[in-house]
Amino acid sequence: MSDKSLIVINPNSSESVTDGIDKAVTPLRQYGIPIRCLTLKEGPTGIESQLQADLTIAPMLRLAAQQSDAAGYVIACFGDPGLHALRDQTALPVLGIQESAVMTALTLGQRFGVIAILPQSIPRHLRSFGAMGVLDRLAGDRALGLGVADLSDPQQSRDTMIQTGLSLRDRDGADVLIMGCAGMAHYRTELELETGLPVVEPTQAAVAMALGHIVLNLRHKGSDHA
Amino acid sequence: MSDKSLIVINPNSSESVTDGIDKAVTPLRQYGIPIRCLTLKEGPTGIESQLQADLTIAPMLRLAAQQSDAAGYVIACFGDPGLHALRDQTALPVLGIQESAVMTALTLGQRFGVIAILPQSIPRHLRSFGAMGVLDRLAGDRALGLGVADLSDPQQSRDTMIQTGLSLRDRDGADVLIMGCAGMAHYRTELELETGLPVVEPTQAAVAMALGHIVLNLRHKGSDHA
Amino acid sequence: MSDKSLIVINPNSSESVTDGIDKAVTPLRQYGIPIRCLTLKEGPTGIESQLQADLTIAPMLRLAAQQSDAAGYVIACFGDPGLHALRDQTALPVLGIQESAVMTALTLGQRFGVIAILPQSIPRHLRSFGAMGVLDRLAGDRALGLGVADLSDPQQSRDTMIQTGLSLRDRDGADVLIMGCAGMAHYRTELELETGLPVVEPTQAAVAMALGHIVLNLRHKGSDHA
Amino acid sequence: MSDKSLIVINPNSSESVTDGIDKAVTPLRQYGIPIRCLTLKEGPTGIESQLQADLTIAPMLRLAAQQSDAAGYVIACFGDPGLHALRDQTALPVLGIQESAVMTALTLGQRFGVIAILPQSIPRHLRSFGAMGVLDRLAGDRALGLGVADLSDPQQSRDTMIQTGLSLRDRDGADVLIMGCAGMAHYRTELELETGLPVVEPTQAAVAMALGHIVLNLRHKGSDHA
Amino acid sequence: MSDKSLIVINPNSSESVTDGIDKAVTPLRQYGIPIRCLTLKEGPTGIESQLQADLTIAPMLRLAAQQSDAAGYVIACFGDPGLHALRDQTALPVLGIQESAVMTALTLGQRFGVIAILPQSIPRHLRSFGAMGVLDRLAGDRALGLGVADLSDPQQSRDTMIQTGLSLRDRDGADVLIMGCAGMAHYRTELELETGLPVVEPTQAAVAMALGHIVLNLRHKGSDHA
Amino acid sequence: MSDKSLIVINPNSSESVTDGIDKAVTPLRQYGIPIRCLTLKEGPTGIESQLQADLTIAPMLRLAAQQSDAAGYVIACFGDPGLHALRDQTALPVLGIQESAVMTALTLGQRFGVIAILPQSIPRHLRSFGAMGVLDRLAGDRALGLGVADLSDPQQSRDTMIQTGLSLRDRDGADVLIMGCAGMAHYRTELELETGLPVVEPTQAAVAMALGHIVLNLRHKGSDHA
Repeated sequence: MSDKSLIVINPNSSESVTDGIDKAVTPLRQYGIPIRCLTLKEGPTGIESQLQADLTIAPMLRLAAQQSDAAGYVIACFGDPGLHALRDQTALPVLGIQESAVMTALTLGQRFGVIAILPQSIPRHLRSFGAMGVLDRLAGDRALGLGVADLSDPQQSRDTMIQTGLSLRDRDGADVLIMGCAGMAHYRTELELETGLPVVEPTQAAVAMALGHIVLNLRHKGSDHA
Repeated sequence: MSDKSLIVINPNSSESVTDGIDKAVTPLRQYGIPIRCLTLKEGPTGIESQLQADLTIAPMLRLAAQQSDAAGYVIACFGDPGLHALRDQTALPVLGIQESAVMTALTLGQRFGVIAILPQSIPRHLRSFGAMGVLDRLAGDRALGLGVADLSDPQQSRDTMIQTGLSLRDRDGADVLIMGCAGMAHYRTELELETGLPVVEPTQAAVAMALGHIVLNLRHKGSDHA
Repeated sequence: MSDKSLIVINPNSSESVTDGIDKAVTPLRQYGIPIRCLTLKEGPTGIESQLQADLTIAPMLRLAAQQSDAAGYVIACFGDPGLHALRDQTALPVLGIQESAVMTALTLGQRFGVIAILPQSIPRHLRSFGAMGVLDRLAGDRALGLGVADLSDPQQSRDTMIQTGLSLRDRDGADVLIMGCAGMAHYRTELELETGLPVVEPTQAAVAMALGHIVLNLRHKGSDHA
Repeated sequence: MSDKSLIVINPNSSESVTDGIDKAVTPLRQYGIPIRCLTLKEGPTGIESQLQADLTIAPMLRLAAQQSDAAGYVIACFGDPGLHALRDQTALPVLGIQESAVMTALTLGQRFGVIAILPQSIPRHLRSFGAMGVLDRLAGDRALGLGVADLSDPQQSRDTMIQTGLSLRDRDGADVLIMGCAGMAHYRTELELETGLPVVEPTQAAVAMALGHIVLNLRHKGSDHA
Repeated sequence: MSDKSLIVINPNSSESVTDGIDKAVTPLRQYGIPIRCLTLKEGPTGIESQLQADLTIAPMLRLAAQQSDAAGYVIACFGDPGLHALRDQTALPVLGIQESAVMTALTLGQRFGVIAILPQSIPRHLRSFGAMGVLDRLAGDRALGLGVADLSDPQQSRDTMIQTGLSLRDRDGADVLIMGCAGMAHYRTELELETGLPVVEPTQAAVAMALGHIVLNLRHKGSDHA
Repeated sequence: MSDKSLIVINPNSSESVTDGIDKAVTPLRQYGIPIRCLTLKEGPTGIESQLQADLTIAPMLRLAAQQSDAAGYVIACFGDPGLHALRDQTALPVLGIQESAVMTALTLGQRFGVIAILPQSIPRHLRSFGAMGVLDRLAGDRALGLGVADLSDPQQSRDTMIQTGLSLRDRDGADVLIMGCAGMAHYRTELELETGLPVVEPTQAAVAMALGHIVLNLRHKGSDHA
């Protein structure tokens, strides 16, 4: 296993998001398994709909298949596009950041709140949480509601994220928060400090779980398929 | 963090179970965080009822409090006795093997089956799965139904475990199995081979998640309580 | 049965709470079965966490075992600490005030609202309601949010309780209320008048159910264990 | 209250069923509140469909309205026809035997099994359990599958009931049973002995709860409507 | 089939409501199957309680039985009184407007919001949605809260309906709306324009489904009962 | 609307399946709206995995966009690949055969059983039913378990389908069946006769619903997006 890597695929084409993911998972490099973060060139700048998400699947599957040193995969878009398709393609561990974030959050609080970027993402999230069977644990899912201009202003993003977190805590009863997006790990500590709640950054959660699956040889098709 | 350990507490008094846990989590020692497995001297030989489970909580909490080098805890009894009490006592990561096994299984298959030791454990499991909100993902929970004499016969235990796993797969529709007990990790590979399903050994699952929580500084009370 | 009593155990050490329970269940004494209310000396003044709740279990079980005239038991803390442990210890009827309050409320309205004393109790309640499988009937769970000083002021307690009840009715859609605490029965009538909703006082609900179980010989292990 | 009675209405026209109910609730007469069991003359001999159940509502409501000494009501058909209509008609306590049986069973085991008379009743039961929000606690619902001739043979009825109870226990995992019919209380003890499970006879459960509601002044519209 | 009609029964006695239904379903007449809308003379002016709803069942069943040209039925009261009774009475397709509205809404958005006329209808709706097993998809159910005078003012009704729709969208997260009443189809377009959400008018939904069932020979008892 | 058509896309490349769909929906042509059934040339011969399903989305979206006469769409693969993506792409009605089959079945019985072609499809179905929030209504999902050779033998297919339907009815308690595949409508009548249950053929269900949506102008984004 020593020369194999965990492959993290950012299915959007923003290198800066990939860089943010790479930095977010740095502490997990102490486990001794290389972590390589890739950008899907064919992806859109950001994934804002089921349509965009679904269209990343085919190129993502190809990119994944090309990684001959893969010990496992993480799909780093909150929405987990192609998660089960990639599990059909390979017997190696495949984790999605949404699924992993939820499973991690469920060990940190009784009801999780999700900070979505866009309002239109929420129905998509709800379909996923329903498929996961975890809706009884959902406190709420709230969107930042920021336009493009606002999102490019870090102070504005940070403030809105904290406000959204406080609404999830105070109106919806969340006792753990999930960041519904890759690439915003740098806000995590501040968000925890301002809300007093644990905050799950989904790429961290997925990479941690994926590394555990690799080390423990946990595979969705059973170890005889290894 | 380097000189702190993850503390795994076996709340029954069987050293052999503790040894089994210790061996099961060996692969996870490559992460660089020491893992110390303790036996609760005050516990019963085996935990077979809610009564016995609940009575381990007070001494378990004391034992946990004495570990000044703790970076986090795992409670290694399927039933997670004292899980939330210990989370009240400390802000360090605390994972239960039942909760972690379920969260891990949910990333490996759509419906999980549980291999219980005793029939009377099943209502207890169901209460826990209900509290976790994951009953929609449960395929079934079946007991080995072995007497003490049978359990001491490894071949008999192994065969019955495989039969139970096959029933969970073929009658209940499980596509991932959870071993409903600590200390049986040595059957995991064979169970996977015979059933073709992924098998989650719960102490492995919990230790993997706990190490992730430690490295990522994920705490149920938020990082300001660290 | 005539010389046997229903034993109500208040697992906190406040005699005044025990007195309140004793008074609350007075109308049920017309059934002809003695009701004896005991205070758990080893308990804390009030139970404010899972940690405190779990630590009452061992002494509560001992106290219960000493009551040689018991016809059945009620555990009078909202949170039902040791409910299933005591059911393991005895075949006599054992009711918890939380479980009984919920089952009673479900016959009085479509969605129940819970008035909790402390915000930190809510996740604990939710775990219980999940284990009971009744979350679809929960309208909301809201805490009084009073400090110690306020709680000692009856007028302030009463006003806040009514405000909380009105929020559960108007914002959350509750059509029946549960008092999430023992020892506050004296506010019940006023709360009903101000909100126009039925209000379930949990010790009353549990004692009524326990007496029914005794008279009907309803036992969790079946009547052959009598 | 002393001169008011609990009115139990058997909505079918079989006096023998009413007699069985009357006998079943005898132990609860020690509470000191008279219990009067009435037969709905306009009802069918037995209620075997939603159609028959719904057609009993209008005459049942009239019969109920004529009881000037009523302290409360029990509708004694498993299916609870007219339960909410009668609650609309009166502010007095109104309990249904199905609802009460379920709420009672939930305090006696983690998963309840229902012994239905006819297969076609099962979808009706499931709609009710769904409306009650308790499907996560249902182990199974199985019909006796007896023809008219068999039901008139007590030995045959008893044997089939026990077989059905054992199937609910062993195949479906029930740890408490509900008799899905009024008028079969005389089989309860034997059924408990043969299955080792607690058995809830629904008219007993409903009368016990109704008496509690009367004594505690618990009303679905709040006490200001008394 | 050509000379058979779909029979739509308005179980209240308001001809104006029947007229509104008749107009609402006009576009569906292009299917070629006659649609006849009947008023239940014995019904109340409006159905405002479970009591009133249940009392319409017997006359509604008689009216249905008299329609010798029936190809199928729609019960046009949101609450679906007698839906399953009529299915017991006939093997022809029987649709309820509540059930059909929900099934239609579930194809148009992830979470549906219901605009109820009266607050007291909401518990009744919730029982139905629970029986249907669709509560996880419910965003909210809000009442217009209008008195009789206000309802007779079209502008006031329209404004309040839009306000209620906006609350369901913005506070509860609905992405599809259901009009919880027959006879208000004329507000549908405006409601859609003002909220930007799809709006399901329940009689339209039920008639569309019923016509499909007729043409496809879909019958709740299977085609051998035709 | 008169010159617009409902477009049914079979996302696998088997013309014979498309022909079967075309024949199945013939009765619905009486509605007066043309129905055009297209084969996705780029699709696989049959869709047997999430991987294959996901890969049909991109070409299916292109094919849909080319249909300038579209009044609405049906995606005719049980699994509904690209359903929400196509809803993102167009404001016209888009129905999936799985979703529509479920919504239709819920009006025909209390618990639906699904006849799957392949065992590996079942987890995929369960994810969808979870996302739809209808798992409480699912009786069971059973696969034919036929190899390619068997499927090409109509008698063998028919017999196995009936056996599977009977298992769903007798072991799982289904009272309505769904054929979990397009292109098998010719077995529907026989399956209904042999099981005595209503059988929903999913392309019929979806086309019926889609035509209703078109006629009623029901659009997932509200009528202002038309």
